[in-house]
Amino acid sequence: MAEKNAAALVAGRIGVVGLGLMGGSFAKAAHAAGQEVYAWNRTRSTLELALIDTVDGELDAHTIPSCELVILAGYPQASIDWLTREEGLISPGAIVIDTIGVKRTVCERCFEIADRHDWTFVGCHPMAGKQYSGYAHASATMFRGAPLVVVPPRHMDDLERANVLERLKALLAPCSFGSFTLATADFHDRQIAYTSQLAHIVSNAYVKSPAAQMHKGFSAGSYRDLTRVARLNAPMWTELFLDNADYLSQEIGAIIDSLQAYRDALDEGDASRLKALLAEGDRLKREAEKR
Amino acid sequence: MAEKNAAALVAGRIGVVGLGLMGGSFAKAAHAAGQEVYAWNRTRSTLELALIDTVDGELDAHTIPSCELVILAGYPQASIDWLTREEGLISPGAIVIDTIGVKRTVCERCFEIADRHDWTFVGCHPMAGKQYSGYAHASATMFRGAPLVVVPPRHMDDLERANVLERLKALLAPCSFGSFTLATADFHDRQIAYTSQLAHIVSNAYVKSPAAQMHKGFSAGSYRDLTRVARLNAPMWTELFLDNADYLSQEIGAIIDSLQAYRDALDEGDASRLKALLAEGDRLKREAEKR
Repeated sequence: MAEKNAAALVAGRIGVVGLGLMGGSFAKAAHAAGQEVYAWNRTRSTLELALIDTVDGELDAHTIPSCELVILAGYPQASIDWLTREEGLISPGAIVIDTIGVKRTVCERCFEIADRHDWTFVGCHPMAGKQYSGYAHASATMFRGAPLVVVPPRHMDDLERANVLERLKALLAPCSFGSFTLATADFHDRQIAYTSQLAHIVSNAYVKSPAAQMHKGFSAGSYRDLTRVARLNAPMWTELFLDNADYLSQEIGAIIDSLQAYRDALDEGDASRLKALLAEGDRLKREAEKR
Repeated sequence: MAEKNAAALVAGRIGVVGLGLMGGSFAKAAHAAGQEVYAWNRTRSTLELALIDTVDGELDAHTIPSCELVILAGYPQASIDWLTREEGLISPGAIVIDTIGVKRTVCERCFEIADRHDWTFVGCHPMAGKQYSGYAHASATMFRGAPLVVVPPRHMDDLERANVLERLKALLAPCSFGSFTLATADFHDRQIAYTSQLAHIVSNAYVKSPAAQMHKGFSAGSYRDLTRVARLNAPMWTELFLDNADYLSQEIGAIIDSLQAYRDALDEGDASRLKALLAEGDRLKREAEKR
C-alpha cells in the first residue's frame, strides 16, 4: 500500500485516540513535558475542553501523518475501528500503541493491520488506573512508577525490536513508567484475568450483600479495600471481560472453589482445617510479595 | 461476693490484658496521654519490652484492684479465662471492656461474670487494625478517627447506661476514636461477618491462584487492595471465625452465588446480563458510601 505521508512526520509529536482516564493521562503527561499532542474523541465537548490547555489540535487527516506516536486509548472495538479507518494515514516509521486491558483480541487485529504498512504496532497496557473514569480524573502523573506491559511486534528480529522499544521508551518518557514488562498477548491475558479482572468482579460481587448498606460504624480498612473497585465503568468492563472470558471464567471458578473450602471447614466446625487454609493463604501472600 | 478492694481504685488508671496489636495500641495511647498503665501478657519478654517505656507495672493481684478501666485485648477464650480467674480482684465501680472481633460469645460470658460483681462490663470492638500483628506494630495513633462499636451492659436503665458510656468515653479519650456505635452483640456479629471477616476470607482465598506468584509487572492497585489482608494471624482468626460461623457461612455462601452469576454470564457470552450485574454492583457501592 502506498505511504504518501512520510515526509510529514514530526519527531516527538503524539496522537491520542480517546480522551478518557487513560488517553487523557497520556495527553496531560506529554503536554506537561512539552510534547505536541493531537487528539480525537468521540464526544466533541471533551475534546474542546482538552483543547483549552492540553491538546494542540485535532487528530484528523491533516495531523495523523505528522504523529510519531499514536496511542489508541478507547474501548477495544472502538480502537480497532479507528485504526481500520485511519491506517492509511499513519506515516512510515511511526509507532502505534494501544492501552487496552486485553491483548489477544486487540493485538491480533492490530498486528494484522500494521503488517500492511511500514509503521509498527506495539501492544501496551499500563498497570495504573482509578476507580473513576473519564477525562476529568485523568492526570499527568497517573503512570508515574507504574509498570507498562508491552507486547512486542511480531516478525521482527531482536535488533529491530530493541530499537522500536528504545524509541517507544523515549516517546513515553513523560509518563515516567516504573518498568517495562515484555509479555506475549496470551501471558498478559492470563495474568490480567487474575490481577485486575478478577479483582473487579470480586469487589463488585462483594457489595451485593445487604450488610453493605449498613457498613457505617462497623467497617474499617479491610471493607474499604475489598470494595474500592466495585465502582466501575460497566460497559467498558463488559467488553474487556468478554474478550478474556476463558481465562477470567477459570479464575472465578478457582476462587469459588477456594471460598467453598473455608465454608465447609466452618460448617463442620473443623478448626484445624480452617487454620490450615488460612495459614496457606498467609504463606502464599508472603511468597508472592517476595518474588 | 465480697468486694474487698474498693478503696484501692485509682481514677484514670488502666489495666491492659494482652499486649498484642490491639492491647499494645491501647497501652501506648494511654501512656502518651499521661495515664497510668498496668499490663499482663502471656509472653513475658513482650511485657518486659513494654515496661521499658510504656507500661508502669504488672497487672497482678496488687494492681488489678487499682484500675478504673480494664481492657481485655487477648484472643477470645484467653480473655474470658483471664476474667474468670481475676474477677474477684476488680474493684466496684471499675469498667471492664474487651476488644474482641466477635461479641455474642464473649459478651454472654462476660456479662454473666459481671453480674456477680459491682463492676461493669461493656463489650467493645475497635474498627481499626493492620495486616500485621503483635506489640511491635502497635501504635498510639491506631484508633485515631476509627469507630468503636459498643455493646452496652444488660440490665441497666437508660440513665445508668448513659453514665457508664460517658465515663468510658472519658477513659478512652487518649485513643481519639472517631465515633461510638451502639449495637447489640447479635447485630455486631452479623455486620462484622461481612465488613471484616468475609474480607479476610476473600483476600486469603484470592492469593491461592497460581497467578499470584507471577503478579509482578502485571499488577496495580486492585490486586494490592484485594490481597492486603490475605496476611493474617491464622490461629486468632480461626477462633474468631468459628465463634461467628453461622453469619460468616451465610456471607460466604452469598458471595459464591454472586460470583457464579458473573461466571454464568461470561460462559454464555451474555453481554447484557454481565453489564447489568456490573452496573448493579457499581450502584450498590455508590449507595453504600452515601449512607
